[in-house]
Amino acid sequence: MTELRGPVRIVGTGLIGTSIGLALARLGVVVELVDGNADNALMAERIGAGARRVDIAPQLVVVAVPPDHVGAVIAEQLAQTESAVVTDAASVKSKPLADARRLTGDLSRYVGSHPMAGSERNGPLAGRADLFDGATWAITPHETSDPEAVDLVRRLAEAAGARTVEMSVEDHDLGVARVSHLPHLMSALAAGTLADAPLSHLELSGQGVRDVTRIAAGDPALWTQIVSANSTALSGLLEQIRGELDRLLVALGKEEAGDELTAILGQGVSGAVRVPGKHGTPHIDLVTVLVTIPDRPGQLARLFADAAESGANVEDLRIDHSPGRPVGEVELAVKPASVDQLVDVLTERGWVVHR
Amino acid sequence: MTELRGPVRIVGTGLIGTSIGLALARLGVVVELVDGNADNALMAERIGAGARRVDIAPQLVVVAVPPDHVGAVIAEQLAQTESAVVTDAASVKSKPLADARRLTGDLSRYVGSHPMAGSERNGPLAGRADLFDGATWAITPHETSDPEAVDLVRRLAEAAGARTVEMSVEDHDLGVARVSHLPHLMSALAAGTLADAPLSHLELSGQGVRDVTRIAAGDPALWTQIVSANSTALSGLLEQIRGELDRLLVALGKEEAGDELTAILGQGVSGAVRVPGKHGTPHIDLVTVLVTIPDRPGQLARLFADAAESGANVEDLRIDHSPGRPVGEVELAVKPASVDQLVDVLTERGWVVHR
Repeated sequence: MTELRGPVRIVGTGLIGTSIGLALARLGVVVELVDGNADNALMAERIGAGARRVDIAPQLVVVAVPPDHVGAVIAEQLAQTESAVVTDAASVKSKPLADARRLTGDLSRYVGSHPMAGSERNGPLAGRADLFDGATWAITPHETSDPEAVDLVRRLAEAAGARTVEMSVEDHDLGVARVSHLPHLMSALAAGTLADAPLSHLELSGQGVRDVTRIAAGDPALWTQIVSANSTALSGLLEQIRGELDRLLVALGKEEAGDELTAILGQGVSGAVRVPGKHGTPHIDLVTVLVTIPDRPGQLARLFADAAESGANVEDLRIDHSPGRPVGEVELAVKPASVDQLVDVLTERGWVVHR
Repeated sequence: MTELRGPVRIVGTGLIGTSIGLALARLGVVVELVDGNADNALMAERIGAGARRVDIAPQLVVVAVPPDHVGAVIAEQLAQTESAVVTDAASVKSKPLADARRLTGDLSRYVGSHPMAGSERNGPLAGRADLFDGATWAITPHETSDPEAVDLVRRLAEAAGARTVEMSVEDHDLGVARVSHLPHLMSALAAGTLADAPLSHLELSGQGVRDVTRIAAGDPALWTQIVSANSTALSGLLEQIRGELDRLLVALGKEEAGDELTAILGQGVSGAVRVPGKHGTPHIDLVTVLVTIPDRPGQLARLFADAAESGANVEDLRIDHSPGRPVGEVELAVKPASVDQLVDVLTERGWVVHR
């Protein structure tokens, strides 16, 4: 069993790099911080993510630079070190591997990885030691990866508190294209039609359009790099979407198109219910209860105190806040076994509850 | 000023019809309940939404039957009554109007309307007197609508507790195509690609794909009727989406496609930030604070009690529940003026808070 002893060199002290440094520092692992932007490295050092200068050669190098530069920095770090294992944290795995392969001969010391955690915040100051606690961290060995190198990267992920999943580079990239990059593009396309919409149309917005378009607000420059790096997997999926879109358009043009439309919408239901919810259980296993709440400070506190007294654990929740409503509605999702008790207790305490 | 005196005849005692009945009954307006399904009318009567038999001719008829039948029932009710105003509650307005026009000569007593509230639950037992409290209720007069009829329908919406918005039939249908029907179809297409995805890909799911695909789980039969009824407005938007999709595919096929991709993603950002949040304010005006919480009963109660003591009103919240995480993360959105006080109080009480 390979042990993670350190030092660990982190190249790129943005959110991910700094958070890995903070997670390792809390375990006493020596961390070296490298960044082309000296201010970032200094800030990361100041908040305790490691030191800008370490005199011992690294056991492991983590490349956490922007997507476009990952392959080149991997090759550079392999050249600069003699025996260090090199990994990266990019959200697409085939492009860094191909880029590094063009630049260097032996890639046995390189193993790709992808810590699946993030934030809308960027930069070292957004770094957090607990960013990866319980998160998924994909490890993607290639054909020539040294098994001991794979082991060491797994130790890194575990040290940061993550749950590891091992898969091939190709499988990973198709997976994230499906569950992350394609949803992002669909959200962007849907949101794009609202850019020039009259205000009177936007006034008709409900919770659905808010949910569908939320992620479209993400940084276009970062997403351009992510999407470009995964263009092969994404193009295949987008072709599939275009096929379905054409089917939709033909169906909508017909007088009697019910069956075709229902089939397309039914396929959507089949996919939607497969998306895992909290704890990886399908959200279909939870029961939701609606509670009307006045829009005043303290009401949520009172509601959750009452819910807690019923013994129910709130697994998920959502506030419905339609424009202009003087009252809000909170949707509480609980396990089926807790629902009766929850409704009884809330009703008893004067809440307006709907199942 | 036209007064709503009643009786009000409600045709169709599903969620919407029954809820209108309950809202009017609490004001003492006499409500007559009509439904082809005798069980539904009986249930609606039993929960207090009105009576199945009323001997006085109605002042107003509300047609709340499934989308496909609305036009025919409007014509039927105009024929059956001498002076009653007739409205409907369908989510698309041009098709019922066109259908009714084919079946009857004089439509001056008809004014379309669309109460924008709903639930994932259906049927009379899901009915609630407060379903429309503070909701938007669109009123869509056509060229020959009698102004007094328009006035009476406005009184109905206000009596149900809603905020009215008046717009043309065409404008309404393009608006809901944009902010409701198109997002639903985009969600269904994105979710559809997950129907046959390997489980290992679904394991990589985060909050983004959950948000984008949530509404795709809606009833395909109902959505087929809604989408078919609004096919003209929707086809135009879908053609626009297809154009953007082609642009995306061409850009992804190029070696250097950055600018094109960034432009498409930037358009998405422009649209996403225009979607109104709570109280109609853009969500960009709120500041979010992340709080780590152990996944145990009572923690949310403790958090909201502490937040309330800081004096901050939580305007929106979201739980991030990645599969397998032993801790959850709650994102609280508050007004910028409350954020410092909130962070101070929560930190003081031992919460792990990130801005």
